[in-house]
Amino acid sequence: MRSKVVAGVGLTGLVWAALTAIGIGPASAQDVADAYDRSAAVGAEAMNMVVLDNIFIFLSGVLVFLMQPGFALVEAGLTRAKNAANIMMKNIMDLCIGVLAFAVIGWGIAYPGTFNGWVGTAGLGIAGFFEGALVDISPEALVSDDFYPLAVPVDFFFQAAFAAAAATIVSGAVAGRTKFIGYLCYSAVITAFIYPIVVSWKWGAGWLDEAGFIDFAGSGLVHMTGGFAALAGAMVIGPRIAKFDNDGKARALPGHSIPLAMAGVLLLFIGWFGFNPGSQLQADMAVPIIAVLTAFAAAAGGSAAMVTSWITMRKPDVSMAGNGVLAGLVAICSGVGEMSWLGTLLTGAVAGVVVVLAVLGIERIGIDDPVGAFSVHGVCGFWGLLATGLFATTSPINGAEESAGLLYGGGAGLFLDQLVGGVAIAVFVFAAAGALFLGLKSAGLLRVSPEHEMAGLDLTEHGSPGYGPDILAAATTV
Amino acid sequence: MRSKVVAGVGLTGLVWAALTAIGIGPASAQDVADAYDRSAAVGAEAMNMVVLDNIFIFLSGVLVFLMQPGFALVEAGLTRAKNAANIMMKNIMDLCIGVLAFAVIGWGIAYPGTFNGWVGTAGLGIAGFFEGALVDISPEALVSDDFYPLAVPVDFFFQAAFAAAAATIVSGAVAGRTKFIGYLCYSAVITAFIYPIVVSWKWGAGWLDEAGFIDFAGSGLVHMTGGFAALAGAMVIGPRIAKFDNDGKARALPGHSIPLAMAGVLLLFIGWFGFNPGSQLQADMAVPIIAVLTAFAAAAGGSAAMVTSWITMRKPDVSMAGNGVLAGLVAICSGVGEMSWLGTLLTGAVAGVVVVLAVLGIERIGIDDPVGAFSVHGVCGFWGLLATGLFATTSPINGAEESAGLLYGGGAGLFLDQLVGGVAIAVFVFAAAGALFLGLKSAGLLRVSPEHEMAGLDLTEHGSPGYGPDILAAATTV
Amino acid sequence: MRSKVVAGVGLTGLVWAALTAIGIGPASAQDVADAYDRSAAVGAEAMNMVVLDNIFIFLSGVLVFLMQPGFALVEAGLTRAKNAANIMMKNIMDLCIGVLAFAVIGWGIAYPGTFNGWVGTAGLGIAGFFEGALVDISPEALVSDDFYPLAVPVDFFFQAAFAAAAATIVSGAVAGRTKFIGYLCYSAVITAFIYPIVVSWKWGAGWLDEAGFIDFAGSGLVHMTGGFAALAGAMVIGPRIAKFDNDGKARALPGHSIPLAMAGVLLLFIGWFGFNPGSQLQADMAVPIIAVLTAFAAAAGGSAAMVTSWITMRKPDVSMAGNGVLAGLVAICSGVGEMSWLGTLLTGAVAGVVVVLAVLGIERIGIDDPVGAFSVHGVCGFWGLLATGLFATTSPINGAEESAGLLYGGGAGLFLDQLVGGVAIAVFVFAAAGALFLGLKSAGLLRVSPEHEMAGLDLTEHGSPGYGPDILAAATTV
Repeated sequence: MRSKVVAGVGLTGLVWAALTAIGIGPASAQDVADAYDRSAAVGAEAMNMVVLDNIFIFLSGVLVFLMQPGFALVEAGLTRAKNAANIMMKNIMDLCIGVLAFAVIGWGIAYPGTFNGWVGTAGLGIAGFFEGALVDISPEALVSDDFYPLAVPVDFFFQAAFAAAAATIVSGAVAGRTKFIGYLCYSAVITAFIYPIVVSWKWGAGWLDEAGFIDFAGSGLVHMTGGFAALAGAMVIGPRIAKFDNDGKARALPGHSIPLAMAGVLLLFIGWFGFNPGSQLQADMAVPIIAVLTAFAAAAGGSAAMVTSWITMRKPDVSMAGNGVLAGLVAICSGVGEMSWLGTLLTGAVAGVVVVLAVLGIERIGIDDPVGAFSVHGVCGFWGLLATGLFATTSPINGAEESAGLLYGGGAGLFLDQLVGGVAIAVFVFAAAGALFLGLKSAGLLRVSPEHEMAGLDLTEHGSPGYGPDILAAATTV
Repeated sequence: MRSKVVAGVGLTGLVWAALTAIGIGPASAQDVADAYDRSAAVGAEAMNMVVLDNIFIFLSGVLVFLMQPGFALVEAGLTRAKNAANIMMKNIMDLCIGVLAFAVIGWGIAYPGTFNGWVGTAGLGIAGFFEGALVDISPEALVSDDFYPLAVPVDFFFQAAFAAAAATIVSGAVAGRTKFIGYLCYSAVITAFIYPIVVSWKWGAGWLDEAGFIDFAGSGLVHMTGGFAALAGAMVIGPRIAKFDNDGKARALPGHSIPLAMAGVLLLFIGWFGFNPGSQLQADMAVPIIAVLTAFAAAAGGSAAMVTSWITMRKPDVSMAGNGVLAGLVAICSGVGEMSWLGTLLTGAVAGVVVVLAVLGIERIGIDDPVGAFSVHGVCGFWGLLATGLFATTSPINGAEESAGLLYGGGAGLFLDQLVGGVAIAVFVFAAAGALFLGLKSAGLLRVSPEHEMAGLDLTEHGSPGYGPDILAAATTV
Repeated sequence: MRSKVVAGVGLTGLVWAALTAIGIGPASAQDVADAYDRSAAVGAEAMNMVVLDNIFIFLSGVLVFLMQPGFALVEAGLTRAKNAANIMMKNIMDLCIGVLAFAVIGWGIAYPGTFNGWVGTAGLGIAGFFEGALVDISPEALVSDDFYPLAVPVDFFFQAAFAAAAATIVSGAVAGRTKFIGYLCYSAVITAFIYPIVVSWKWGAGWLDEAGFIDFAGSGLVHMTGGFAALAGAMVIGPRIAKFDNDGKARALPGHSIPLAMAGVLLLFIGWFGFNPGSQLQADMAVPIIAVLTAFAAAAGGSAAMVTSWITMRKPDVSMAGNGVLAGLVAICSGVGEMSWLGTLLTGAVAGVVVVLAVLGIERIGIDDPVGAFSVHGVCGFWGLLATGLFATTSPINGAEESAGLLYGGGAGLFLDQLVGGVAIAVFVFAAAGALFLGLKSAGLLRVSPEHEMAGLDLTEHGSPGYGPDILAAATTV
């Protein structure tokens, strides 16, 4: 466990030379630890700060990974017991396949770096992020305009957690009727190609970034990507057998465990404190403000959704309130770095209203999205982009003056940028994921047989039940 | 995601001037990030330390928020399946409403700051904590006697997590028979007024603080507040229909899922490592000692409760052991900063014994507290205050000499302070919460009809079941 | 909560003098906080770094403790509903008893420190780790060859979390048939003696450390210890009544809740980001690399186990995929500090294949390990040790040249060291735990009666059911 630090490299020499010498970057974590001479800490304040930045973003990434059990429990809880193991399996494999696919292919596409386009950089992959395991903290580097405190491995770790989150949004929307093999294909393609391409547009310094589009933590890049892929999946695969009667009227297919689903919502709430504050990408005094605003948006979204469901459904609906919390969190991702408390509360509250109406509306037009994935992530992700256009107090890139008030009083330029960005993401993801799901469908890899659907995917796709006979009250239900 | 830092403000000029210029503090998180010139990190060791303090307390606050799924699972697991969604909903809305009510009203009451009393400062609210987003780290500030490293947003974030925890303690005690609308009213009032008033007495530098009362992390301020509000609620609302037979003898109404409840206990255990070590309010070398003592108290409490239940109930009871872990954690909050390992083990072990006896005794006198909220948080919170009086190795404010031993050998002054503080909190909270619940009762907002109680609150209050028919073995049970 | 820092001690005087003056180290956490003069932070970069190290390892320890709900849910979910409360209780008491036993006895054995052998140092125990609450950060200390940044309390906290993890591995292997009192005896002995003796061999600078054995985060020391104790337990206690038919053919006894089990797997995945990166024992730039490699191993293990189960069992098995994730994580612990990404992927993928074959093979030879504890922790822990011998890019202690490639091209010396270490751990733990379980058996403390086994341990050992009648579909099942 204890690996003694070897001294002697010196503060400015920690850098790239040693790495190129061994070809693809350091051969092991220990090489990197050795490169920083911590016994020279006297006189090395900058190193302290850079290490803090990297440790903080690592811990933020861990919190983002905590969203995986959160998503898994939400989706399992809101669907039927006979498909519960299948949902958990899909989420675990999203994580496994997502991390590997993003490492080998996606990462190079998302962050083209010094290359001029994304196509040629796929080869970066795994090798790429082991170059850059150190940060140059020489005085010259520190005062340069483009000093960036994060080493590549921590950057990758944080981004891989985001990719896995984007992928896992879809599994709930296609729950209860999808072949496992088809889902694996989808999961690999979205983390290897679809999500990274969208990311490259903004965080990879692509055309949306140049246009002035703002998406701090991914209302658009992460949540709309997951949400519109979910919509494409739900539409291509069609509703569950029992969902609509012959007149097309929706039947309620309540989840098998609201306690698990709401525990998942609360874990997602926790995970979001890695997602949003960590997107600051360094440890600074903006982090706690972002955290407070994140909590505000969640609270406003949950409260507004409760009230909205009370009005429209005549009772305060539990899963709607939970989805409202998530809707507020999704919507605030985009603007949380540029909004006041007032803009944040408005963003979250509107999201809470919108998500309830969207869930009811989606069902009315005949689309079966068992957990409301598109309404939460797609619709409220888009709303978050627009809210940034409405409420951001500054619009630095469009050249508007900084607002002195709580809400933005500037021109329509930013709003238009946000609208264009949102439409571009929606169209691209819907088309790409739609093509993918149509391809899987025509290959016979998408939908299970009606008999298997009735029997449940746990038994038919995985060979053993998600709940034992000691717990499962009724082995087969619609 | 990446927001480049703009240089040029300078270390001593980061402060209040810029904030007042925009009226209510910085307009956005980004303004704050910009104010710290991180490229000037060379020569800025103090900034490193202050940023570490703020990041650490932010992460501690995240751990405290992790207590929300912990409480939710404990309470849901220990009550009936037909009310499980209702319990989860109450906990989620505690969080939503608690954060907002504490922001708008409670925060200003709890921490009156430069004002002389709390009444006039409610207006601070949301606007208040966005002033103070930066910390003055000029050399003069650093060496001043009242240097305080935390920026106001991180302070608020941490305290808001505490307020939500205090509120959520009650939901288990009134489980299975409370109208949802009445619970919402309670939740808003305790986080807006009752809890903040108690906090102002000590952490807001009020009369208990001046008297020398010690409550490091809130055995009294947080847990007794939740616990005595729970007692008032359980007494005013009365027992569940099926709880006592005609002779007044208690019937066992076992929880529907011990696995969920104990998973909740373990999550609370984790969350306590934010609650106690974070209460040090800075990143220093006392933090790990506090963590070790916190684990000791939990271990002693769980072990002692197991033994006690083995003796009194003839079997080692699972939920008693879980409550013993929580009892030890509750009791050590007060004195963890001033106790040795011996005092800690004694505090935790006694709490483990006391909680079992309290749960059995409360039931015997006809009070129905389904999850033991009053016994864990009220009784063991009080015990924690007294234990500090007995075991604290120093009594700095009362002028006693520092003890050279493992336990305090000084006078009775501190014990009396702790007793007075505990009685004051108990009386005030019980009276205030009792009045609130009586008011709700007389307005017809407190208790559901017997028919609704028998059918379960999930269906009658929220319109859909907490468990699907595929899981629920018996739709209606007592 | 707020404890003002008292100035005046000075940076080099923070050390041991004050501690010896009060006999057994500082009397309280507050004494320690006071000793560091934070207002002297100007000019104290080294203190910043040391505090960051200690805070980071504290937070890593919290993540390791998060493995406790993870283990509890995996084990409960994979066994029967009638024993679910018993499993949760065993895991909670592992934590309680484990922390206390490791504090009083185990810690002194594991880390003999300046003593020459481990026998005489058991007395260190609790008193021992409160000495050393501060770190000497004088310039002389910082540049000394054996500078170690962690204060003893944080070191203990982190190690105690490991001890509790090692203990809890066994509870699943003996699930459904073990007397609770017997399990408590086991839990105390493994955390007080068996695990600490093994730890002393390597992390306590014992004979394996001198031999050049590599075990960065405990594939051998932690997981093989838990895994081989599990094997001994499962063999001594014998299979569950219903497990094998008269011909010795295994019957499937599926777990009662795959969703709970897989949520546990995901929590363990999160906890591992404390386990492995925290084992670096300081906050440095190797931490994120270790995190990335940890995620890679999990992903490779989960993917490979899914494929292997698909081939051998004709369906992609959910619990096998979950066990594959854990197998990859267990296997990478040993070499994660010395491996490239390629070695890591190979280590994880082989573990995923091996765990499926081991689970099937163990069952075939008539051993009933309900959750696969030996296969995951024992077999894949051993594989992890050997993989380090095969794939480590450096072999610093054996004098091999540093490899310039992705895999180790050196001699067989390291592989032999790893093999010897693994065999030693396996033999010692299997013998010691076997003797313990045989002793418990002969004392009549090990196995419950067949009637109790059929009725379930929740009722017979703890007096109340783990699930209420509203959830339990069939009160008694095999």
